Amino acid sequence: MRTPPGVSPSDFALAVAQFQAAVGPDWVFTSDEDLDLYKDAYSPFWGEPEEKIAYAAVAPQTVEEVQAVVRIANQYKVPLYPISTGKNLGYGGSAPVLSGSVVLDLKRMNRILEVNEKNAYALVEPGVSYFDLYRYIHERGLKVWIDCPDPGWGSVIGNAVDRGGGYTAAMFRNHFDAHCGMEVVLPTGDLLRTGMGAMPNAETWQMYKSGYGPWIDGLFSQSNFGVVTKMGIWLMPEPEAYLNGTVSVFGYDDLVPFIDILNQLENGQVFTGMPFLGSPVFSGIDPGDQMRPNNDPELAAILAAPGGPPKEALEAHSRKVGKGLWAAKLQFYGPEKVIRAQWEHCRERFSAIPGAVFEDGDLLRFPLAPDQLVNEHKVTFGIPNLSIFFIGARSETSPPGDGHIWFSPIIPRTAEAIFEAQRVFRDAADSLGLPMQPIALPSTYWQRAFIFIFGFPITHDIETNKKNRAAFRTLVKIAAEHGWGEYRTAPAYQDDIMDTYSFNDHALRRFHETVKDAVDPNGVISAGRYGIWPKHLRGTRA
Amino acid sequence: MRTPPGVSPSDFALAVAQFQAAVGPDWVFTSDEDLDLYKDAYSPFWGEPEEKIAYAAVAPQTVEEVQAVVRIANQYKVPLYPISTGKNLGYGGSAPVLSGSVVLDLKRMNRILEVNEKNAYALVEPGVSYFDLYRYIHERGLKVWIDCPDPGWGSVIGNAVDRGGGYTAAMFRNHFDAHCGMEVVLPTGDLLRTGMGAMPNAETWQMYKSGYGPWIDGLFSQSNFGVVTKMGIWLMPEPEAYLNGTVSVFGYDDLVPFIDILNQLENGQVFTGMPFLGSPVFSGIDPGDQMRPNNDPELAAILAAPGGPPKEALEAHSRKVGKGLWAAKLQFYGPEKVIRAQWEHCRERFSAIPGAVFEDGDLLRFPLAPDQLVNEHKVTFGIPNLSIFFIGARSETSPPGDGHIWFSPIIPRTAEAIFEAQRVFRDAADSLGLPMQPIALPSTYWQRAFIFIFGFPITHDIETNKKNRAAFRTLVKIAAEHGWGEYRTAPAYQDDIMDTYSFNDHALRRFHETVKDAVDPNGVISAGRYGIWPKHLRGTRA
Repeated sequence: MRTPPGVSPSDFALAVAQFQAAVGPDWVFTSDEDLDLYKDAYSPFWGEPEEKIAYAAVAPQTVEEVQAVVRIANQYKVPLYPISTGKNLGYGGSAPVLSGSVVLDLKRMNRILEVNEKNAYALVEPGVSYFDLYRYIHERGLKVWIDCPDPGWGSVIGNAVDRGGGYTAAMFRNHFDAHCGMEVVLPTGDLLRTGMGAMPNAETWQMYKSGYGPWIDGLFSQSNFGVVTKMGIWLMPEPEAYLNGTVSVFGYDDLVPFIDILNQLENGQVFTGMPFLGSPVFSGIDPGDQMRPNNDPELAAILAAPGGPPKEALEAHSRKVGKGLWAAKLQFYGPEKVIRAQWEHCRERFSAIPGAVFEDGDLLRFPLAPDQLVNEHKVTFGIPNLSIFFIGARSETSPPGDGHIWFSPIIPRTAEAIFEAQRVFRDAADSLGLPMQPIALPSTYWQRAFIFIFGFPITHDIETNKKNRAAFRTLVKIAAEHGWGEYRTAPAYQDDIMDTYSFNDHALRRFHETVKDAVDPNGVISAGRYGIWPKHLRGTRA
Repeated sequence: MRTPPGVSPSDFALAVAQFQAAVGPDWVFTSDEDLDLYKDAYSPFWGEPEEKIAYAAVAPQTVEEVQAVVRIANQYKVPLYPISTGKNLGYGGSAPVLSGSVVLDLKRMNRILEVNEKNAYALVEPGVSYFDLYRYIHERGLKVWIDCPDPGWGSVIGNAVDRGGGYTAAMFRNHFDAHCGMEVVLPTGDLLRTGMGAMPNAETWQMYKSGYGPWIDGLFSQSNFGVVTKMGIWLMPEPEAYLNGTVSVFGYDDLVPFIDILNQLENGQVFTGMPFLGSPVFSGIDPGDQMRPNNDPELAAILAAPGGPPKEALEAHSRKVGKGLWAAKLQFYGPEKVIRAQWEHCRERFSAIPGAVFEDGDLLRFPLAPDQLVNEHKVTFGIPNLSIFFIGARSETSPPGDGHIWFSPIIPRTAEAIFEAQRVFRDAADSLGLPMQPIALPSTYWQRAFIFIFGFPITHDIETNKKNRAAFRTLVKIAAEHGWGEYRTAPAYQDDIMDTYSFNDHALRRFHETVKDAVDPNGVISAGRYGIWPKHLRGTRA
């Protein structure tokens, strides 16, 4: 048995024995066969010595067992790496940031403690997946929706604390914002509840987020300050109906008023669904469609022009083939008469752009029949699934890879920023020898910012992975020079990204380190996660 | 000159001299005449030795000056008490929690650094009041609204970090939730920026809230962990129109389906304005109207019945006078055709309650003419004003007082909780000899919880104040026994309230203390605020 960094073989043996006593011998894993399952399936270090590997795993079933494990870890200074379901491929999976850590696998804590239909919330443990929660609600016929990412096998808690997003109405798409109340095992093994849950017998733990005094929940997101063992999440009442509508424009510079109108409508909550942006002339505009280009050779020639595609050529081609150069698919949830009025108003507003073309989507009422779902993006209706795997890595529709990692910088929500980012990333891709779609449009998970999401392939060729890692790091730096930061990243790059948030000599990281040292004096929880290292490992930071 | 607790006269003299050097001699105040202005105008300790008093005040104009003052305070261990505008009467005003502290008055930091109309946000300093921001926007004809509390003289930053609320659409009413990005002077004098602002030259500081890594903004709300010197706030695009409509029901138990329907509509965002709840049979239902009862003697007799008003009598009276027993005024913002459809849908939904009566409000389009505003609650349209002072303390319409303090417990968003809270607080009021309206309804600032807000009078009679303080503390305990906690409170009661958030031997407060000791080792910032004391004063906690 290998031993975690800084732990003697005898101490580790004692710790493992105590873990076994705490959770039962069946739930402590030390064999290679078992530990291989905790490897990152999309590891950019595949086959290299830097690959991040767990040296043991322990799977408690109760909060008390989590506390016991954390206390044992403190006694022997064993690094733990908590995961919920560990399924976030592309952002690190279940492998620890610090190789050799013991994975604290919370999959057995999978109780749905409450689903309140009238007040539209759930209280869950970290092992509860989107599938689990959906099934529970569906079996009982409750009229509430979950909001889930693509794909749906992940943890409701894990996704929220990693600040992931979904696809229904805006106030539910930001999963951290939609959470309400946490229970946390602190790095010392102490147990606290946040928000109203800090009051014994609280009646409003899942109804009022911030409680009294400092609101600390954010500390437990994208961090290593504690282990979240319960969390409330707000659900969306099942709407009466759903409608979408698509607006296309043909002028290159039309994107400027287009985005302004889009922002004003969304910020005024005239629509609450996620607007999908795309170039119909290049591909469909639903999520993932940008990875399935129509491969029009005439367009390909324009896009390949040195120095970037000339806008006149793009416009001429777009008009010739009768497909918009820029488009948005707007989505509406609510009573039929309301969403019809909302779409009508949106049409009126976008009509200010000469030549704008509109396409009405079908109106759907709930619940949907199974055949209605066949061609739909199921997460639009809060239905978890795994169909996302049919695009991207391991698919037939794009160059097959062995995995991917996401590069996901946040840029301003303006057309000017889109044009600049297209130019900057196109130039960078040219010099790095990467493929890059030069008129790619950003995603709109959040209401006030755009996110560009580029997938970097992970291969089973070490040299290619090395080259891609260097390219990723270069892109991070180029983005930061333009004031664009990533909102999350895989463990391989967590230090690199934190390095770019360097205002006032890295004041934010220094603050995190102060908090880390105070709440986790032995540095036992998730060493290195999001670029925060315990004191004794800080010198080893890349 | 008196000296702050634990500071020698010579050290304090040195500190004051250095404060003068840092900010200019005109901006350090030590005379009684000047310091009297920092007293809490609504102090429950008026004329008693416990009254909280500043021993000096210092008013920097720049971030660098704030840093200098904080560093001097660390050198001499002088307790500082930062205020923005200090105008939150009823929750403590500008007086320090620890009497003898030096008020760090940020009123001179009143720059509006940016108002971005297209992306609908502002970046402000702490001295910027709602009036200031409104005037700036109005003078430039920008089509964005602020969301402001009653009254509008307070600070945009101060209100958000104290987690106050306003009156427009839900996503703007929670001022902390609507903030985006902070700059903070830490208790050591170090400067950090949160969210995307931690990246130098960030382009999205006011567009994406949580940045990368732990999201720490919540730590600087209702706390004493830093001094917020800049903050972004999201603004609401001016809507095309506004509409309200009132639903009244006459059966006592009708409140159960009434609240269920209300919640489902609001959680589904069919309306985004604040729903006002009230009893038309007792008073109007706009904010403050519950303090202006119609004084119907027949109703008064029913309400005074021992053991609480009999529901049959309430229903009979309500039907006899033709005024609803329970009602909600719904408010809609958006395009005219959308909000008309929303109200129509709400009418249909509430029609499920037999005998429900509807009243259509006027549709208003923006901008409003001055005469249209005369009888309106101006904050509904994001217009700051001081007319709230015409109700409550120092008014002609309720028993005149010298001030008030708010008791504001959060209860579940159900009719059952309302009935229980009415009974519990009525019984408590009876035994404490307090006036209490036995069919009072809670407020709806937040979407998912109710808040009862009761005003406690502050008088210039010491014995009355003592009796009221004891009664307030008793009510806090009674509420906590039922699982209802307060969301904020005046300094006089901050320890009492924190005491009720006692899960697992006060784990939350112990966590706060751990953070406090780490980030403010000399305990110089706002000792005692929200029940968090620096280590050297922790033993003195009441």
